[in-house]
Amino acid sequence: MKIKWGIVSCGRIAKDFTAALQTLDKKEHEVVAVAARDLKKAEAFAQEFDVPKFYGSYEELAKDPDVEVTYVATINPSHVCVCKMMMDNGKSVLCEKPMGMNRKQCEELIAYAKKSNVFLMEAMWARFNPAYVELRKMICSEKIGKVKHANCTFGIPMQDVERLGMKKLGGGITLDIGIYCVHLASVAFWREKPEKIIASGYLTDEGVDWSASVIMEYSGGRSAAFTYSGLISMANEASVTATEGVIKLRTPFWCTDVLEDMESNEVIFKVPIVELPNTNFMNSYILRFEAEEVRKCIMKGKLQSSTMSWDDTLAVHEILDEIRHQLGVVYDEDISTMNPSRTRKSGSSDINQESKCSKAL
Amino acid sequence: MKIKWGIVSCGRIAKDFTAALQTLDKKEHEVVAVAARDLKKAEAFAQEFDVPKFYGSYEELAKDPDVEVTYVATINPSHVCVCKMMMDNGKSVLCEKPMGMNRKQCEELIAYAKKSNVFLMEAMWARFNPAYVELRKMICSEKIGKVKHANCTFGIPMQDVERLGMKKLGGGITLDIGIYCVHLASVAFWREKPEKIIASGYLTDEGVDWSASVIMEYSGGRSAAFTYSGLISMANEASVTATEGVIKLRTPFWCTDVLEDMESNEVIFKVPIVELPNTNFMNSYILRFEAEEVRKCIMKGKLQSSTMSWDDTLAVHEILDEIRHQLGVVYDEDISTMNPSRTRKSGSSDINQESKCSKAL
Repeated sequence: MKIKWGIVSCGRIAKDFTAALQTLDKKEHEVVAVAARDLKKAEAFAQEFDVPKFYGSYEELAKDPDVEVTYVATINPSHVCVCKMMMDNGKSVLCEKPMGMNRKQCEELIAYAKKSNVFLMEAMWARFNPAYVELRKMICSEKIGKVKHANCTFGIPMQDVERLGMKKLGGGITLDIGIYCVHLASVAFWREKPEKIIASGYLTDEGVDWSASVIMEYSGGRSAAFTYSGLISMANEASVTATEGVIKLRTPFWCTDVLEDMESNEVIFKVPIVELPNTNFMNSYILRFEAEEVRKCIMKGKLQSSTMSWDDTLAVHEILDEIRHQLGVVYDEDISTMNPSRTRKSGSSDINQESKCSKAL
Repeated sequence: MKIKWGIVSCGRIAKDFTAALQTLDKKEHEVVAVAARDLKKAEAFAQEFDVPKFYGSYEELAKDPDVEVTYVATINPSHVCVCKMMMDNGKSVLCEKPMGMNRKQCEELIAYAKKSNVFLMEAMWARFNPAYVELRKMICSEKIGKVKHANCTFGIPMQDVERLGMKKLGGGITLDIGIYCVHLASVAFWREKPEKIIASGYLTDEGVDWSASVIMEYSGGRSAAFTYSGLISMANEASVTATEGVIKLRTPFWCTDVLEDMESNEVIFKVPIVELPNTNFMNSYILRFEAEEVRKCIMKGKLQSSTMSWDDTLAVHEILDEIRHQLGVVYDEDISTMNPSRTRKSGSSDINQESKCSKAL
């Protein structure tokens, strides 16, 4: 059976995701509509990707009865209100990472999905990358013994991405790329919570984080350590070291297509490449695997994925919150969620939330 | 002109160093004597490496008028007293790293070298590895722009090395392998002092460190981050990321023979390999380059190397002290140097020092 996608936003990742969707069986996935705040952009997108319907507002797409599942790829601070709008209209939601600006916002969306009885998942595509699936199997079966350390660097100059420098637009790179490093640790130490998190980094005067190093400690001397930066290129490899082997996730580790045995330098797993021309990001064809997971879950009537569960999302965001706290990055969203009197009650909306939404819509 | 070496200790690194020495021009370097606490071991070493004289005590070697320069490779806590004994007898000293158990001990040895008017250098062989020399040139000439980050992992299972688990023998791995990570940063940020050091690691109940992760921050968001472990194998690569390039030091980064351009994966520098069979450690032929530095300095009548100066040694040990402090690793030597009433005056010796020495000799 086919699921019918609505693409919410016409940004770079929305384009890559749509291109990846179109590599899947047309009997299983169909893109039926796209929406942008600018009708012309939506029209151009529809033409480029051969999407039958396009809208100049997210609301119109939300109300399109033909759309079953929405891919929300708007800017980070708008995820909460856009996802809610989709859920209000009964649509399943795959929300681009970070699902929320903090754990509290993720909790809010999860509660909303439960209440609305719709599927919701954070689009952590690395989770469904066959290389990560293989890695997870090796880890969980202890094929390489017990994991002792996970390590990665993620550095790409991104100062030209304007929103990343603007705090009001959810700027900073912990939520954009640090999340992949935290996610790697969540795979390496499969769903285990670190005992201690130590983060140190570099912020602009405005309080936007552009680079950071993080140490996470697990019981018995196990640890993860990573550095990420939006200022410079880095090695961008990851390694997971266990008692009986060291696995390298070849660059770019967050969407790697190769696992390597570090000692022999031998390739131990390779993701079959699907050609996807003119994409914005590296290895974007790997986005198809999270789309397949969404379909499988919806077919089974599930509200969440058991592979990237709501708890998994919350666990990653709890760590991200702590890292940002130590770095000194505070968003408006943190302040409103930190102050109980301003916490939004389910179903109602406060002024702050409304103004965020009107900005986003 | 030839310099005549005396090898102090017959341990594994002493063997590799002697083997490396013997790859150099015989008109420039000659090994004339070897000493161990066990005469039989010294004899076997002398036979294996064709060394004319062997002694069953370090003191006999110190008093041999034929010996000009000594390579001190005894266990870490004995470096101070053994080096002093050599200097008391007018010998130049190349002291295996760590030169002292802490900065204070290094200062003490440096003061002793000045007073004794002999050459003294910490055997930080990475410093003279042609790959590091090339890296340093690239960094100092800003050929790859300005350095922003240095990163490495150093993990080798070493639990079978008994002394590393024994605090009284200077156990723990910060001084043995962490020093290479700190040294990498001292090359990457050429002689610049970090503004902030953050370390976290795993200690045994006895207070011996077996793994650690460290973040070092330099001004303007530049940083170094590394993890080292004596429990597990790790990637063991290093990368230096600069504004116009990323250089990889291929595994094993502390004695790498290959620099690679990270973006193109092209080899940009290769150390010419000299075959050295049956060595204990990897790439031990690279030890020859520090021996050449020692000869050059002695020929010029210098007391210290300008490439690995006394200040360089002190700067590295200041960082190591801080890392150990944060990890909670305290040696007896720290306590005696922390307590001014027990601090040894130049030329005299206190009971603690004597007992250490008698243990070592």
